[in-house]
Amino acid sequence: MSSPLGHNFIGGQRSALGAIQLHSLDATTGEALPHAFFQATEAEVDSAAKAAAAAYPLYRNLSAERRAEFLDAIADELDALGDDFVALVCRETALPSGRIQGERGRTSGQMRLFAKVLRRGDFYGARIDRALPERVPLPRPDLRQYRIGVGPVAVFGASNFPLAFSTAGGDTASALAGGCPVIVKAHSSHMATAERVAEAVIRAAERTGMPQGVFSMVFGNGVGEWLVKHPLIQAVGFTGSLRGGNALSKMAAERPQPIPVFAEMSSINPVFVLPDALRSRGERIAAELSGSVTLGCGQFCTNPGLVIGLRSAEFSLFVEQLSAQMNDQHPQTMLNSGALVSYGKGLEHLHGHAGVRHLAGQPQQGKQAQPQLFKADISLLLNGDELLQEEVFGPTTIVIEAEDETQLRAALGGLRGQLTATVIGEADELTAHGWLLDALQEKVGRVLLNGYPTGVEVCDAMVHGGPYPATSDSRGTSVGTLAIDRFLRPVCLQNYADALLPPALQNANPLGIRRLVDGELTDRAI
Amino acid sequence: MSSPLGHNFIGGQRSALGAIQLHSLDATTGEALPHAFFQATEAEVDSAAKAAAAAYPLYRNLSAERRAEFLDAIADELDALGDDFVALVCRETALPSGRIQGERGRTSGQMRLFAKVLRRGDFYGARIDRALPERVPLPRPDLRQYRIGVGPVAVFGASNFPLAFSTAGGDTASALAGGCPVIVKAHSSHMATAERVAEAVIRAAERTGMPQGVFSMVFGNGVGEWLVKHPLIQAVGFTGSLRGGNALSKMAAERPQPIPVFAEMSSINPVFVLPDALRSRGERIAAELSGSVTLGCGQFCTNPGLVIGLRSAEFSLFVEQLSAQMNDQHPQTMLNSGALVSYGKGLEHLHGHAGVRHLAGQPQQGKQAQPQLFKADISLLLNGDELLQEEVFGPTTIVIEAEDETQLRAALGGLRGQLTATVIGEADELTAHGWLLDALQEKVGRVLLNGYPTGVEVCDAMVHGGPYPATSDSRGTSVGTLAIDRFLRPVCLQNYADALLPPALQNANPLGIRRLVDGELTDRAI
Repeated sequence: MSSPLGHNFIGGQRSALGAIQLHSLDATTGEALPHAFFQATEAEVDSAAKAAAAAYPLYRNLSAERRAEFLDAIADELDALGDDFVALVCRETALPSGRIQGERGRTSGQMRLFAKVLRRGDFYGARIDRALPERVPLPRPDLRQYRIGVGPVAVFGASNFPLAFSTAGGDTASALAGGCPVIVKAHSSHMATAERVAEAVIRAAERTGMPQGVFSMVFGNGVGEWLVKHPLIQAVGFTGSLRGGNALSKMAAERPQPIPVFAEMSSINPVFVLPDALRSRGERIAAELSGSVTLGCGQFCTNPGLVIGLRSAEFSLFVEQLSAQMNDQHPQTMLNSGALVSYGKGLEHLHGHAGVRHLAGQPQQGKQAQPQLFKADISLLLNGDELLQEEVFGPTTIVIEAEDETQLRAALGGLRGQLTATVIGEADELTAHGWLLDALQEKVGRVLLNGYPTGVEVCDAMVHGGPYPATSDSRGTSVGTLAIDRFLRPVCLQNYADALLPPALQNANPLGIRRLVDGELTDRAI
Repeated sequence: MSSPLGHNFIGGQRSALGAIQLHSLDATTGEALPHAFFQATEAEVDSAAKAAAAAYPLYRNLSAERRAEFLDAIADELDALGDDFVALVCRETALPSGRIQGERGRTSGQMRLFAKVLRRGDFYGARIDRALPERVPLPRPDLRQYRIGVGPVAVFGASNFPLAFSTAGGDTASALAGGCPVIVKAHSSHMATAERVAEAVIRAAERTGMPQGVFSMVFGNGVGEWLVKHPLIQAVGFTGSLRGGNALSKMAAERPQPIPVFAEMSSINPVFVLPDALRSRGERIAAELSGSVTLGCGQFCTNPGLVIGLRSAEFSLFVEQLSAQMNDQHPQTMLNSGALVSYGKGLEHLHGHAGVRHLAGQPQQGKQAQPQLFKADISLLLNGDELLQEEVFGPTTIVIEAEDETQLRAALGGLRGQLTATVIGEADELTAHGWLLDALQEKVGRVLLNGYPTGVEVCDAMVHGGPYPATSDSRGTSVGTLAIDRFLRPVCLQNYADALLPPALQNANPLGIRRLVDGELTDRAI
């Protein structure tokens, strides 16, 4: 493996104009890694934005097939990143190599899935209303609609998925698929990883003849603000903290030209355990749930942070079993020292609250995160206590006991927007709790039955989104193919001669895509 | 016709708890109409929001067919509003009766079109990825996605379309279609009209057994803020000024839970006239264009406010012809005195700018708006002069002459986001100006060839939207069936037994809708 160069990626060139040098850390030892990364200057960010804006008309007008070839080439380049790359990612993130190998496959698979979306063509949203020249009192002109990319997109990756939610992650894949050039703000906790991935994207861009400026990446801590405020940037994708997402949303809303921000932020992912299920398989649920809470050191957006049950002998037994399971879990190294500090503070707040009791877990100390279990009084939920609603990022969860279903219903009202909600129950009791399933739909992006929220499949039907504060825009998802919709906008073309129309809207339907023609979905030519 | 009651519509009841009484004005005479309207109190707004929130789970879970019946019933009730109603609207708006009759049909037709969308079922966006239990290393769970209404929506109607963009206009129709209860802030310039329309909606709701609270309407000037800031309101639809839309967007972004605002605001709708077209039919274009500029007293969102051509003998002649046409246009009464004051101020700003020359039109005075034609130096566009970019709401337009195509290209860069752009050209020159058509797609919601932007067809393919400042969110449209998308969000259901799924996602496909099943669009059962 060659040493990192540490230069920014600006419109197809490497650039290091700045004086500030940054170092990535070994996530396990906390020691600085040897190679320096050059923080981008405002002029470099400006150059990247201008290169993206120059690339935009060229790139958005490439055929979907050409963009699909680009995404496939990125996927191939990612798959070709070898064992030395995996070792590097592990060093920067303290994640195990098996996880990184899996995540590499997830990230390349995501690129290939968006290539498939491009070839399928439904992303165009093609709609045709043909002219009605004889209509009275007024004729109807020929009207045709399709969707185009919104323009250059800024992407802020997450620390917890250094591949799948970062440089070439879901936001980048969906924006590139939509015809939008991308500028990534490299995550400061895995800059060497980001550089290797950006090199892979650039190789793919060169190999498939993409316009320069289709992909740029900048290093540095203060540089994100320049990016979001840059007049040529037209949308933002972000995965991270509520504070960070809110700050970017505010910046974007206060621009002379406000732009949309798709921020995936904070979720406590409540799990509801129903009595019959506890009676028939409580011990297994306790084991599975503790596994989900501590998976990846609890560093998942969909980590179950709240477990809610109904007062009963079964639930009391279940809480005992869950306590025992959580006491058996080992400490793990977190992604970076900042995450460990935040985790420690989150636990302190829980320990310090009169309505919260500690049930299991070793005292938090040292360089690793200790799994913890707490129990909170339901009044915290009923009264909308902030503490309970804030994600504690790490291997911890909080149990809550409702007196009865009436109290459970009331407590639901206090729950803020979430990425997921899970209900564990037997078939009959799920049927009897239709009201609960309905109410959860109105609060979250994904409702799971008899599963655990920590697995997030990349597919057409996935929603990794949900009402605020889970995200800044509940109409989007940051995982799955629907993510492309965030970066597309409709355009109507009126009274165009056939030859002037884009292929997606031409009479002959040369792309063979499904279109809404005069109110009927069809893939026929017209 | 019975006298207006003037009470607010709160969750199915009439309510007049406030002390402030408002009067609508006769738009032609400026005199106050006799009947009083009671400004809503904060408690009444709160009651309306609570009624909407209570109705939401019931209403969103009604079948699409039931909601379609409601929309059809509203359409029937609107159609049944007779001549006395038309006379009332004309009195409040100074619009001619033929226009109001047409707009009534447009408004009821819009309701029926959304009923058709509901029955077609593509609005569900149904996607199914079936379980892959044998997949290695990890099985895939069954994942199904559909879209649900976001929750209660606040609608702010426009003055210029007292029916089609107001109480039961496109925002209301699309939100109701999406399963969202609606609270309308009645436009203060046509409160009696609003009351008659709201009564029609309520009659339809009662006749079709809709939950109380599905529709409310409040009167008053300061009440919109209470509505937008109310925690139970989940989205806002607005048609009006840039200042008004920006104010609502800011309010919505600063809420503890930010919500989306779909504001259709300001557009100058540039028209590009190419040389060959002017050579072959310049005089006709001048006549048609002046007709479009002065149609409805220029009070259309899509009024052509800028006419851009290339320096040439043909263009000079065309400007002369257009001047003559504009001098021939008659003054007209505007929607209200506020609109006339704004129009006068807009003209003053144009008269006062050194780079702008007056070409045609009588001096603005009296109670009617005088059509006007100006010519601005292209430097105003090149330098992004604010004056040129601001919509002057009324029967006026500004001509701009570009030296050559290079300067035209540069001037395009200075153009802000627009609802529409129009290009008038012969077939060959349109082909030669592919770069212009492409560039305009990136600036606007609708590109028209050889037409005029003032007609906005209500259909599947229409986009009445566009980049800021035309709207606050370029991914939406406020006219046409795609408008429903603004008020829907995706939800994923994981590992659900078939009987627990909504019909749109059940294996048997009982609704017979088109779904994306394992990556393939199909209407088959699975």
